[in-house]
Amino acid sequence: MSQINAKKAIILLSGGLDSATTLAIAQSEGFECYALSFRYGQRHEVELTAACRVATALHAKEHRIVDMDLAAFGGSALTDTDIDVPKDRPDLSAGIPVTYVPARNTIFLSYALAYAEILGAFDIFIGVNALDYSGYPDCRPEYIAAFEAMANLATAAAVEGDGHCRIHTPIIQMTKAQIISIGVNLGVDYAMTHSCYDPDEIGRPCGRCDSCQLRLKGFAEAGLKDPVEYTADKN
Amino acid sequence: MSQINAKKAIILLSGGLDSATTLAIAQSEGFECYALSFRYGQRHEVELTAACRVATALHAKEHRIVDMDLAAFGGSALTDTDIDVPKDRPDLSAGIPVTYVPARNTIFLSYALAYAEILGAFDIFIGVNALDYSGYPDCRPEYIAAFEAMANLATAAAVEGDGHCRIHTPIIQMTKAQIISIGVNLGVDYAMTHSCYDPDEIGRPCGRCDSCQLRLKGFAEAGLKDPVEYTADKN
Repeated sequence: MSQINAKKAIILLSGGLDSATTLAIAQSEGFECYALSFRYGQRHEVELTAACRVATALHAKEHRIVDMDLAAFGGSALTDTDIDVPKDRPDLSAGIPVTYVPARNTIFLSYALAYAEILGAFDIFIGVNALDYSGYPDCRPEYIAAFEAMANLATAAAVEGDGHCRIHTPIIQMTKAQIISIGVNLGVDYAMTHSCYDPDEIGRPCGRCDSCQLRLKGFAEAGLKDPVEYTADKN
Repeated sequence: MSQINAKKAIILLSGGLDSATTLAIAQSEGFECYALSFRYGQRHEVELTAACRVATALHAKEHRIVDMDLAAFGGSALTDTDIDVPKDRPDLSAGIPVTYVPARNTIFLSYALAYAEILGAFDIFIGVNALDYSGYPDCRPEYIAAFEAMANLATAAAVEGDGHCRIHTPIIQMTKAQIISIGVNLGVDYAMTHSCYDPDEIGRPCGRCDSCQLRLKGFAEAGLKDPVEYTADKN
């Protein structure tokens, strides 16, 4: 597809399955894609390495990694090594787990808004999912709608009437299996992605945290084999 | 005033006149105050030094400084040394100036929301002002209301019904002179504060940028002398 006069979009890219698919969808819709990742005190760098691979493979126009200091506040198993990542949870829909990072998507989207304003872009893509997800409040459609309303009052472009900011959530109502099927059709190589909250020392996913469980269930339901190698191989 | 069982509040504290007054107001309303500042790629550290002085003098319970990387995106005279800070602007209400930092208040409030959620707080104070201000979109009441609506959908506490998040803007409709008068009555020593966008090498304010102009006008209208020493003394 030609990128001549393509509209610019910011894509939040974690390096996981959902955000990789979201980037592929934004590309397929003709946007010139500016990927944005964060080094936010995650327990491991594997997911940022995955984000770099994905951005390159899916031809992002630019990929920025912003350093930020979410761990300064603590309070999540994803940023605090004193809190264990839960494993083998039988019911993933039971309450908000300790892997929840307070206000994380709000902070990520705020940075995306700043980046969009500087680029003159009005489209932000985020790979949140309200179906096969871990019960995080900032993945729900009503939250996204409220952020979009706020964004349209927050920026100089909004005040000056240059355009309407839109938060795109193309996979918000899809099952993991649907996300994977669409991604495969769009040419996403899921071997490049990383979803695990608690990989081993060489970066292999555990297969047992919420994120691994959701991913494995998705591949099973899509009738596909997950191309990544797990610590104890689950395929 | 007793702080026993006081409600916790987060106060965004830049070290300037407005946020110092806002902290004093929050204290006077009986909140236990957690001050939050940012090292966001400002051209100078003077304002963070001021924030530390103010937090101590006004008895904040805690003061956190979060490192962040707004300069990575560029686009503002406050974070990009290639852009000159405007001086002696005759009409401060004419359009949005180059000192505007894209989405800055949205990012600051997002961090405040994270900090609040971790502390179990539901009150956030921000010293925005929509009267004697520089035309920034993210200082307007309608923007603050939209952020508050979003915040109440963003957090685990909001989903679980533990409390309603409120963004307090006690000085939003005050003139600079009113802000200064109230602060003086509450015991704020404005000699500790720093407002200038472009201080000299020993940290003295220029007296000519928008922020200095608004401050000097406020002191003049309040019938008071600004206790800080300017590069070319304006008092």
